[in-house]
Amino acid sequence: MDVVALLKGHRSIRKFTDQPIDDELAESIIRAGLSAATSSNLQGTTVIRVRNPETRAAIAELAGGQTYVETAAAFFVWCADLHRSAVACEMAGGEFRPGMTEHFVIAATDCAIAAQSAVCAAESVGLGICYIGGIRNDPAKMTELLGLPDQVAPLFGLCLGYPDQDPAIKPRLPLSVTLKEETYDESGDVAGIEAYDEQMRAYYHERTNGKIDRTWSADMSALLGKESRPHMRDYLQGQGLNKK
Amino acid sequence: MDVVALLKGHRSIRKFTDQPIDDELAESIIRAGLSAATSSNLQGTTVIRVRNPETRAAIAELAGGQTYVETAAAFFVWCADLHRSAVACEMAGGEFRPGMTEHFVIAATDCAIAAQSAVCAAESVGLGICYIGGIRNDPAKMTELLGLPDQVAPLFGLCLGYPDQDPAIKPRLPLSVTLKEETYDESGDVAGIEAYDEQMRAYYHERTNGKIDRTWSADMSALLGKESRPHMRDYLQGQGLNKK
Repeated sequence: MDVVALLKGHRSIRKFTDQPIDDELAESIIRAGLSAATSSNLQGTTVIRVRNPETRAAIAELAGGQTYVETAAAFFVWCADLHRSAVACEMAGGEFRPGMTEHFVIAATDCAIAAQSAVCAAESVGLGICYIGGIRNDPAKMTELLGLPDQVAPLFGLCLGYPDQDPAIKPRLPLSVTLKEETYDESGDVAGIEAYDEQMRAYYHERTNGKIDRTWSADMSALLGKESRPHMRDYLQGQGLNKK
Repeated sequence: MDVVALLKGHRSIRKFTDQPIDDELAESIIRAGLSAATSSNLQGTTVIRVRNPETRAAIAELAGGQTYVETAAAFFVWCADLHRSAVACEMAGGEFRPGMTEHFVIAATDCAIAAQSAVCAAESVGLGICYIGGIRNDPAKMTELLGLPDQVAPLFGLCLGYPDQDPAIKPRLPLSVTLKEETYDESGDVAGIEAYDEQMRAYYHERTNGKIDRTWSADMSALLGKESRPHMRDYLQGQGLNKK
């Protein structure tokens, strides 16, 4: 298998067949994910598999009506977790110091790395995936639904299933912009972004029969011109994370 | 290729042969990484390849004497990047709102996901990898070395090269602890951690001919009982990130 080509061909899948995923395979995929590198062996990741249809429906709704959360063969919530390490710290007679920004960075990074390793495993066996960042629309509700303790934050959901669609690959920014040599030389970035804007305009045109006229810059303006999820700081601090 | 087995067999590699990596292959691996999922297509990742031996030596030193930063065939710094999106936002006539915690979470997550997809690509072609979280020992110096603008933070380094060692796979916490069903039920965690402590004690014993007697709990106590990288909060805020 040409894994490099497989990964270059990634598309998010939002429509799945009814085919279930064997529990053994799902567990194997999660185990592959959790075998990835982890900072200082902290293993700051907890995965919660949600099967209950009512919980799934509640998550789909709070994520902004993402119905594939309900219809995917398997759905997992990936949490940045310092709680378990704090328990271990106390088991060893130590005193856990909560709230360090660095510890949150470690746990969030660990969690994303583990999730993407699971995604690579899943895609290699023909499954499709979709990350659900929309669970951060209401992390307090997620915390209640999943019974999360202090020092744990839900980072994203992950739908897994056998694809029932074959979407086009979304173009990415040119490497001339995203891969730099030696230093952050941004002299070519505006030209690179302009070229990408035109590429994305053509991509949207083709996918919508000319109905959508959008560029990446316009998308960024819509995204970053508003206070995205302004509750996140207080939510994380309320969980005892990312405070100091 | 059995990718699931490959990923379960991950070990960090810290000793590399002299064999170089073709630039074309390195670029292909980074491209595979940057093809991974990204939140709202933000693409909050910039990769900086460092070839200059002096810069590599400076990074190896600030990372705590990690000499493989110098000896790996290729070395990359992965940055969480909102700067480029802010530029795009302004190009589209929008007004970028800096400092949102959520935007930092998006960029850091994007960056870690892209890096791990690159790692999967690299490992699939026989390369070994080692993440270098130690660059966060001195992010201000990294910022100076790489000329990073506001809204960009170096998250970790990544060494790539052909392995010249064959280390054992480090055991992970049992899935009974890290993969939960429906809710965060921690009733089995202490027993799971105790079992893992004994497994890690045996692992260290075997690797050091009985010289090291350590458990995971003790490692967590050493790590979390001190104020790890207490500069991170101010550093990130100084870059205009993770403020509100």
